[in-house]
Amino acid sequence: MKKYTTLILVGIILVLAAVLTGVLVFLKNQPPQERAIIQPIATIQPLEANSSPWGVNYPNEYSSLLLTASNNTPTMYGGSAQKSYLLEDPRLVILFAGYSFSHDYNQPRGHENTLIDIRTTKRVTATTHATCYSCKSSDNPGLWEQMGMVAFDAQLFSDMTPNINNAIGCANCHEAGSMRLVITDPAVEAAFQAEGLDWRTFTRQQMRSAVCANCHVTYYFAGDNKVLTVPWANGTRVEDIIQYEDSINFADWTYPNTGTPIMKARHPDYELFTADSTHYTAGVSCADCHMPYVREGAMKYSSHDIMSPLLDPQQSCGQCHTDVDAVLARVAVIQNTVHNAKIGAEDALIDAITAIQAAAANPNSDPALLDEARTLHRHAQYMWDFISSSNSMGFHNPDEALRILGNAADLARQAQMKAAQAAGDPSLLVTGVYDAMDPKPRPVP
Amino acid sequence: MKKYTTLILVGIILVLAAVLTGVLVFLKNQPPQERAIIQPIATIQPLEANSSPWGVNYPNEYSSLLLTASNNTPTMYGGSAQKSYLLEDPRLVILFAGYSFSHDYNQPRGHENTLIDIRTTKRVTATTHATCYSCKSSDNPGLWEQMGMVAFDAQLFSDMTPNINNAIGCANCHEAGSMRLVITDPAVEAAFQAEGLDWRTFTRQQMRSAVCANCHVTYYFAGDNKVLTVPWANGTRVEDIIQYEDSINFADWTYPNTGTPIMKARHPDYELFTADSTHYTAGVSCADCHMPYVREGAMKYSSHDIMSPLLDPQQSCGQCHTDVDAVLARVAVIQNTVHNAKIGAEDALIDAITAIQAAAANPNSDPALLDEARTLHRHAQYMWDFISSSNSMGFHNPDEALRILGNAADLARQAQMKAAQAAGDPSLLVTGVYDAMDPKPRPVP
Repeated sequence: MKKYTTLILVGIILVLAAVLTGVLVFLKNQPPQERAIIQPIATIQPLEANSSPWGVNYPNEYSSLLLTASNNTPTMYGGSAQKSYLLEDPRLVILFAGYSFSHDYNQPRGHENTLIDIRTTKRVTATTHATCYSCKSSDNPGLWEQMGMVAFDAQLFSDMTPNINNAIGCANCHEAGSMRLVITDPAVEAAFQAEGLDWRTFTRQQMRSAVCANCHVTYYFAGDNKVLTVPWANGTRVEDIIQYEDSINFADWTYPNTGTPIMKARHPDYELFTADSTHYTAGVSCADCHMPYVREGAMKYSSHDIMSPLLDPQQSCGQCHTDVDAVLARVAVIQNTVHNAKIGAEDALIDAITAIQAAAANPNSDPALLDEARTLHRHAQYMWDFISSSNSMGFHNPDEALRILGNAADLARQAQMKAAQAAGDPSLLVTGVYDAMDPKPRPVP
Repeated sequence: MKKYTTLILVGIILVLAAVLTGVLVFLKNQPPQERAIIQPIATIQPLEANSSPWGVNYPNEYSSLLLTASNNTPTMYGGSAQKSYLLEDPRLVILFAGYSFSHDYNQPRGHENTLIDIRTTKRVTATTHATCYSCKSSDNPGLWEQMGMVAFDAQLFSDMTPNINNAIGCANCHEAGSMRLVITDPAVEAAFQAEGLDWRTFTRQQMRSAVCANCHVTYYFAGDNKVLTVPWANGTRVEDIIQYEDSINFADWTYPNTGTPIMKARHPDYELFTADSTHYTAGVSCADCHMPYVREGAMKYSSHDIMSPLLDPQQSCGQCHTDVDAVLARVAVIQNTVHNAKIGAEDALIDAITAIQAAAANPNSDPALLDEARTLHRHAQYMWDFISSSNSMGFHNPDEALRILGNAADLARQAQMKAAQAAGDPSLLVTGVYDAMDPKPRPVP
């Protein structure tokens, strides 16, 4: 009898232990409020800039965000390594002559490096406005709320530095407590409004792209206070943006010796992706590829180690595409094609610049024709830069990228022709090094 | 007892009738040899030009082929209606000036109409060679076998007419008896050989594209005998073909008043599709989209009513794509984009032609620079025509189409510039009507 008693008791203990383990695992997988019984949860203040308390409640998301600090891996054309675009393609030094981008222009790194990188770039000088912090810190949403965007942007960069202590973090895209995805940048909210859109009515899947637009859109600095402004008043296509910036006579700088008022495009990834791209129209969001769902033990969460899908294609592309090798081959074809078209547009632009400079130096040049040449240069350079400055080497929207780069080259050639007409000098029509008959892609590094 | 006997006998009869019906249905669905028991089968002579005896054995395939006679439905940019390309886009009249395509150039109709259409086009004259029958008749494989391609092509078109009695048919792609897919055009067989390829080693799925290359490839007429030749000696990319045709100094005609030796591209659909297109690299064949499997009662067969997939998208695209409406929207985006790029290249070409004509008329023009202008015109026009003359308005390979059209416009602008340099006359630099800032697609008819 005693032998049986022991067996029964051991049995009961095993069953209880198993049940308890199950309950604990279940609780651990619950949202923070429910798992508070077994694990401390932090209460997050609204617009909390420091991501680490958020990380108490969402340890997987937070620890994957921290991984963006050390990711330093290049892809064929992009990735997270801090390479110099200027060394890689010296044409850019010419195309940005007279502007800060000709001194320092690097491949961006992961979100955790935003503050280090903005504070060490030579593009930021003693007169730079605080506007340049806009997309660099999770302190911004709180500061914008507190002081307003105009007052924020009116400060000098250096004066704002003591208030900025955190790189991109949770508060840039999430509402504390509810954790819902939110547009935090007032300039982007205004831009959506100009499009007749209220982001608060977006579905969650739409927000999984829209929050990326908090930063990954083009912008300009409006007025003396350098107020961050997203130029979507006429639409989000490159032609809409050019027409808008023309209508307000905006220029970032005047190109040296051509006199062209140039506008700089800034990573219009959201604009390019949403311009009828195949992935966008299929309902795919930015996060589907750049923040794929991953499993950690029993937990499934969206990776916050945001990076090129090419660095983990099985996890990213493999969610939808069964043959990931075929996808990678396709990406290479697209990126090589867009790269070659980009170089073609650059060479046409450089030829145009050379011709306009000569025409502008000629006192007998026709001023009206010279101005036409400048307008063509302005439009061609913005079109090229719209694709050049966006990430993905055209992959976000291959057809649109090739369409725009083709038009950029055509307009640049027309600019060169107008300059020669203005000067009455056909010797300005020499063309550069790009050989459109040589379709060879750049070799993979 | 008698009552039971009746019931048993009726039961036996019903069972026997059901079994017999089943056997007959089974036999009817067997290949011709097996179903010969219940249905006459025809014995097809090798290279039999008349498709109707083949149709005895393959009634569904044959009757669907006959449907191509009456299909007269347009799509947004293509389809099977016999519209005039020249009326639709008068730029073509300028671009083909001095050549027969400027007089008569229509959207092709279905396979059953090939003979009617070749015999009524104004492009065929008293001096036209029989080569123009090459892709128009199922009599060709037999005649090529019998007399050889050179002797065939050396004849006049009108002299060959009595021997040509059948439109495109079974013998163009099938071997009698085995019904396997075959390359029947000796010029295409030679072209594959030049690429180091033996079509006899192709898989069936590869052949479901390769047989379309029997006709849907570009070609030229070699020598005085006008021998059909596919210019793949250097490769099948547009640059490879241009380099080859340059190396043999080939020209279809000399452009009036520019003196440019122009080569005409002819529907290089196979070349464009196989240049790393997304469908080709995914293993899709021409037949998968243009000859989808359909069901007729218990029979499943590949439709021979070959037409644009847009005319039956559920049957064509729907074999792989679940959301056919999304596919159609995507096709419209691609085709509108390619169409606009095509028009852009045409306007650049017309500007180039105008400038070269003026430079050529100027006795003081530099002959070397003028020749450079002509070479740029020649290359630009072939690139444009490579896409313009292929079917699908770029859909067969959107990225490649946009890449090529972008380069065509760039080279055309460079041609215009060289002409102005040659003449020392900047007034030749006027540019035409195309507004690269206006991205509006042509409205859907």
